[in-house]
Amino acid sequence: MSLQSFFNPKSVAIIGASRQKGKVGYEILTNLVAGGYEGKIFPVNNKTDEIEGLKCYPDLASIGETPDLVIIIVPAQYVPSVMEECAKVRVKSAIVITAGFKEVGPEGKKLEEQVVQIARRAGIRFIGPNCLGVIAPAHKLNASFGGDLPVPGSIGYISQSGALLAAILDLANANGMGFSSLVSIGNKADVDELDIIRAFGVQKDTKVIAGYLENIADGDGFVREAEEISYTKPILLMKSGSTAAGAKAASSHTGSLAGGDVAYESAFKRAGVIRCDSIKEQFDFAQAFANQPLPEGANVAVLTNAGGPGIMAADAIEERGLTFAKLSEETMKKLAEKLPAAANVHNPVDVLGDALADRYEFALDVVLDDPNVNSVVVLLTPQAMTQAKETAEAVVKVIEQKKKGKPVLACFLGASKVAAGVEILRRGSIPQYDSPESAVATLRVMVDHIRWRTRPRRVVRLFSVNRRKVESILERHLRQGLLDIGEAEAKEIIEAYGFATPRGSIATTAEQAGNIAQQLGFPIVLKIWSPDILHKSDVGGVKVGLKSEQEVKDAFDLMMYRIPKKKPDANILGVLVQEMVRSSGKEVIIGMHRDPHFGPLMMFGMGGIMVEVLKDVAFYLAPLTAEEAKQMLLNTKTYHILKGVRGQEGVDIEAIAEGLQRVSQLVTEFPEIKEMDINPYVVGAPGTTAIAVDARISLEKK
Amino acid sequence: MSLQSFFNPKSVAIIGASRQKGKVGYEILTNLVAGGYEGKIFPVNNKTDEIEGLKCYPDLASIGETPDLVIIIVPAQYVPSVMEECAKVRVKSAIVITAGFKEVGPEGKKLEEQVVQIARRAGIRFIGPNCLGVIAPAHKLNASFGGDLPVPGSIGYISQSGALLAAILDLANANGMGFSSLVSIGNKADVDELDIIRAFGVQKDTKVIAGYLENIADGDGFVREAEEISYTKPILLMKSGSTAAGAKAASSHTGSLAGGDVAYESAFKRAGVIRCDSIKEQFDFAQAFANQPLPEGANVAVLTNAGGPGIMAADAIEERGLTFAKLSEETMKKLAEKLPAAANVHNPVDVLGDALADRYEFALDVVLDDPNVNSVVVLLTPQAMTQAKETAEAVVKVIEQKKKGKPVLACFLGASKVAAGVEILRRGSIPQYDSPESAVATLRVMVDHIRWRTRPRRVVRLFSVNRRKVESILERHLRQGLLDIGEAEAKEIIEAYGFATPRGSIATTAEQAGNIAQQLGFPIVLKIWSPDILHKSDVGGVKVGLKSEQEVKDAFDLMMYRIPKKKPDANILGVLVQEMVRSSGKEVIIGMHRDPHFGPLMMFGMGGIMVEVLKDVAFYLAPLTAEEAKQMLLNTKTYHILKGVRGQEGVDIEAIAEGLQRVSQLVTEFPEIKEMDINPYVVGAPGTTAIAVDARISLEKK
Repeated sequence: MSLQSFFNPKSVAIIGASRQKGKVGYEILTNLVAGGYEGKIFPVNNKTDEIEGLKCYPDLASIGETPDLVIIIVPAQYVPSVMEECAKVRVKSAIVITAGFKEVGPEGKKLEEQVVQIARRAGIRFIGPNCLGVIAPAHKLNASFGGDLPVPGSIGYISQSGALLAAILDLANANGMGFSSLVSIGNKADVDELDIIRAFGVQKDTKVIAGYLENIADGDGFVREAEEISYTKPILLMKSGSTAAGAKAASSHTGSLAGGDVAYESAFKRAGVIRCDSIKEQFDFAQAFANQPLPEGANVAVLTNAGGPGIMAADAIEERGLTFAKLSEETMKKLAEKLPAAANVHNPVDVLGDALADRYEFALDVVLDDPNVNSVVVLLTPQAMTQAKETAEAVVKVIEQKKKGKPVLACFLGASKVAAGVEILRRGSIPQYDSPESAVATLRVMVDHIRWRTRPRRVVRLFSVNRRKVESILERHLRQGLLDIGEAEAKEIIEAYGFATPRGSIATTAEQAGNIAQQLGFPIVLKIWSPDILHKSDVGGVKVGLKSEQEVKDAFDLMMYRIPKKKPDANILGVLVQEMVRSSGKEVIIGMHRDPHFGPLMMFGMGGIMVEVLKDVAFYLAPLTAEEAKQMLLNTKTYHILKGVRGQEGVDIEAIAEGLQRVSQLVTEFPEIKEMDINPYVVGAPGTTAIAVDARISLEKK
Repeated sequence: MSLQSFFNPKSVAIIGASRQKGKVGYEILTNLVAGGYEGKIFPVNNKTDEIEGLKCYPDLASIGETPDLVIIIVPAQYVPSVMEECAKVRVKSAIVITAGFKEVGPEGKKLEEQVVQIARRAGIRFIGPNCLGVIAPAHKLNASFGGDLPVPGSIGYISQSGALLAAILDLANANGMGFSSLVSIGNKADVDELDIIRAFGVQKDTKVIAGYLENIADGDGFVREAEEISYTKPILLMKSGSTAAGAKAASSHTGSLAGGDVAYESAFKRAGVIRCDSIKEQFDFAQAFANQPLPEGANVAVLTNAGGPGIMAADAIEERGLTFAKLSEETMKKLAEKLPAAANVHNPVDVLGDALADRYEFALDVVLDDPNVNSVVVLLTPQAMTQAKETAEAVVKVIEQKKKGKPVLACFLGASKVAAGVEILRRGSIPQYDSPESAVATLRVMVDHIRWRTRPRRVVRLFSVNRRKVESILERHLRQGLLDIGEAEAKEIIEAYGFATPRGSIATTAEQAGNIAQQLGFPIVLKIWSPDILHKSDVGGVKVGLKSEQEVKDAFDLMMYRIPKKKPDANILGVLVQEMVRSSGKEVIIGMHRDPHFGPLMMFGMGGIMVEVLKDVAFYLAPLTAEEAKQMLLNTKTYHILKGVRGQEGVDIEAIAEGLQRVSQLVTEFPEIKEMDINPYVVGAPGTTAIAVDARISLEKK
């Protein structure tokens, strides 16, 4: 069902409308009227006949027609009965402003559930409870008590904090920033962030989606839909509560490294969502996405009337990983022809302190023509002769007349001396920044976003695997309530998904161990084999580098003699006699941790100190494409080591990427796998077989 | 000589004063008058009798008295003769506004040098040329064409970019930000940044020094004096041009890792200078340092009327490495007694959306009393009942009445709805921030700064060394024009400074090599010995792990046969037969790169991939104290590896710190050493001797 009647209703009923100034029921009614809403307004209040000149109705039924949108402001305990009334007259959309539900404790939670049930049964979609309301400037709809109606624009805003929305509205109104819609989603008992994002996705006047969220209920759905929408409408989100959580209980490497925020980061990355750290950053980014085209590349040119800010911009461009555009010979020649001799015709182009508007106009025009330039930052400092207003007009004129399709961002430094210019820039849809750094930071996310949009189509490779085998192992474990899968069966599972593991078998006597070792060849590893011993090394249950049959036999007997003394209750099934994987390769970790919201989160890291001390790991949501698997490797510093440093031969990068994809397929096909690590995964030179030396898998009941 | 007559002159002459609007000579005169300057003003212009009602003089001499300060605005070519005039009437202080000197090329540079000579001879100190002038609000002095006189305050500002200063002035005036003085230093031909910083250091009304610099001429002097001043007046600098440079030519590890900016970073760290990345950040920091006490610790409490911004502040506190204050039981009990039941009495203290000013006043008072709280961020969002103005008054009142000595920072979110409150905060000296992040970022630098101020006194340990030996080696090299010191002598140098190196000697025959090897014990390393071969490995001139006399002899003969073919011109003196240092220890690098401005810059890093791939290195200016040497280790991620991970025994941290100090002493005592590396420096378990396996030293002529 479309949510458009929330934004463009033909009629609005306000249940709990009030005559009393300061009351929410009065504020919303007067906001609606003051905003110039052109539909019908039905105040509902059984104690009065009219409010502010509008006829008042004692209840919904007596209105005589079904309002498109109902705003509910009555005290919490009456909300269920009002919702029943809505159901009776077949209301389809409601906003519950009232607070006092889930946010106040168990009692409120029950009340909220009751309201949800009534609405669901009647097919009513509702926003709230505990929210500020909805604002849609293009439809002159201010169904909120958040503040004055802002000017129409192309940013759709969604906030999980009403108070923050009020602040944002106040800030936006002071800066003349426009919006298509603003929604305070409150407790999101029914309509949630995903519904609104979906609605913004199809709203014609919304070009950019921005918001503040504290959590995302349906992680999977969010990723799927946000990814689709991001291709046409950038999504800019502030997400708080990022550090508080932390998967402390997790036992695996992957789990302990995947803090509460990693899943959100990965989900945002996958879906092309741009994360903002503050309101300022969000405004900075949003105004550029809303008003300017995306740059085709990372080459930035700077136009300035002062050296200092030009250097600051150059520093920022380099620090943010953008490219300082190298102007073509032709461009520099053209600039030199008309600019004064002292002007700098290299990037940053310095039109000098005495530049009037015409010099800016000329230089911007020339620089925009340069094929080496993908975007331009226009800096201006208010000097004695500076024409801030005329320069702004010139910038707007160049863009409007030439429509180059390249983003131009302005940074007019100062306040009163540049105010008139800034106002003209705003009206001309040229984003204005308070520092060169902010403008450059904005270009950086624009470049990232166009790269995301033009990334290769996601094709997840499906390997042919022995799925049935894994099924039967997992089933048996779950049936028996065993959630930790032992080493032997964990290896069977990954073997079924195409991993090579060290050869070996279980011996129950020293003689047998010696024979197996002879067949495998030396050196040999012995590992105690018992379902009751998880940490084998701790009890002396691992012996590596055994070089002869005699050494193997001796080690076998010592384990059998010593370990039962340390672990008298352990059921010892024998000793695993295994070939020793040559350590000429590099040891890496492939892991997975299932996030409660976003599902399987793949991890890659280098073994040993690199992961333990340096936490040099990369995460990405499964299922992985080949590109994403390789990108995970590239996102670690250890990638350089794997590729080979200083003439050292590199290892088989493809083997690691493929291993990641195979685990990705395994955990996607078996949602009962909660966590797993292949550690170490030993990778040698390209062409050699990578070996999964050890694996741990744990399950959860579904 | 004091520079105070630049800020508080009794009389000012303006040479080049003009009647013509728009001319700098007019702007400065009228700015001076409009600012309400109370001293005598002498316009000098031989073409008119009066300007704006002020009597005009044909030249300096005819004024009849010596002005305290002379402002020179005449065209560049006349500046030398005007400076001569100044000398004649014994002027002591001048500002040369005029541009067209060093910044326009060699001709201008010559002119500038001429002016400097005249001034130096006459004992005249002058600011400029090519600058905006000087502003000192407390003395109603606006001797500039940068903008209107700002309100008096306690920030002293220095700018190497006039245009940027004009923008800052405009911004500051719009925000009511106060200054003690502002100086545009232009080309700093005479008075430079250090002179001004020194002057601000003794200026009573300057509490905070801020500025924008593109370079620092006297690095050594800057560090010395800025360090002294930082103890009483925080210094906040923007420094641009940080990425452009880069010591590309440097051949050593240290040199190539020490980019252009590392020296500035190290110098700022040593001197306690706080680096700012943008004007906004500088304003954010400056207003807190100027108006609030430093926090005694890192524990931050947050007071809010909305959950969302509270969470954002909490995130920021954790992300910035501050501590989210744990309120005492007593505090929470007190809060619970008076706040509504739904309020959160834990940090962040949420006084709820309907909080009036009294609730803020009460809660702030209680929270400030908590000994676990070192600083407080007061957040406010404009909700229906919010009293921004009264809340601001309450905050100011609590601070003024209780004078707790704890910093309180405000973040009133919004614009018009909080404007009145923000104005009251400003007048009450409570810094106001546009986001929780900015407030927290400011607290972070305040905490860092108090830690810097309370760091242990710097005591550099002097080791007893064989200085004379090093002297003779260096002298000989410099005399012969040899700037690269060979391995053998480099080792003699570091041995003289207390380092242990591998034992070994030079063999000229295979027989001799075998004998030396026998005496040293196996395994053995052979290294070709020739002043003409710097990169021994490249020509097969290094052979490690030789286990017997025969292997040593064979390797010797192979080198002698093969290397002359590859390097026919090399003068081969023999082969170094050396004990092989057991690799049970960890390999680290101790290095030094002499920065042209700031002198010897020490480097520490772990050997191998850690330094080559991860660039995990730390820099610090020599001479190092024991604490600084240890801090360098702590600043690397590899420190954890050195300390011992996962039960692995750690290495001798003290030995590394001592090695750093010994090199620090060496390069401090011998400024002719340009670069050096001890690589690898092999460090074993505590108590074992660390070995400097290889060393490279290069010199420069002094």
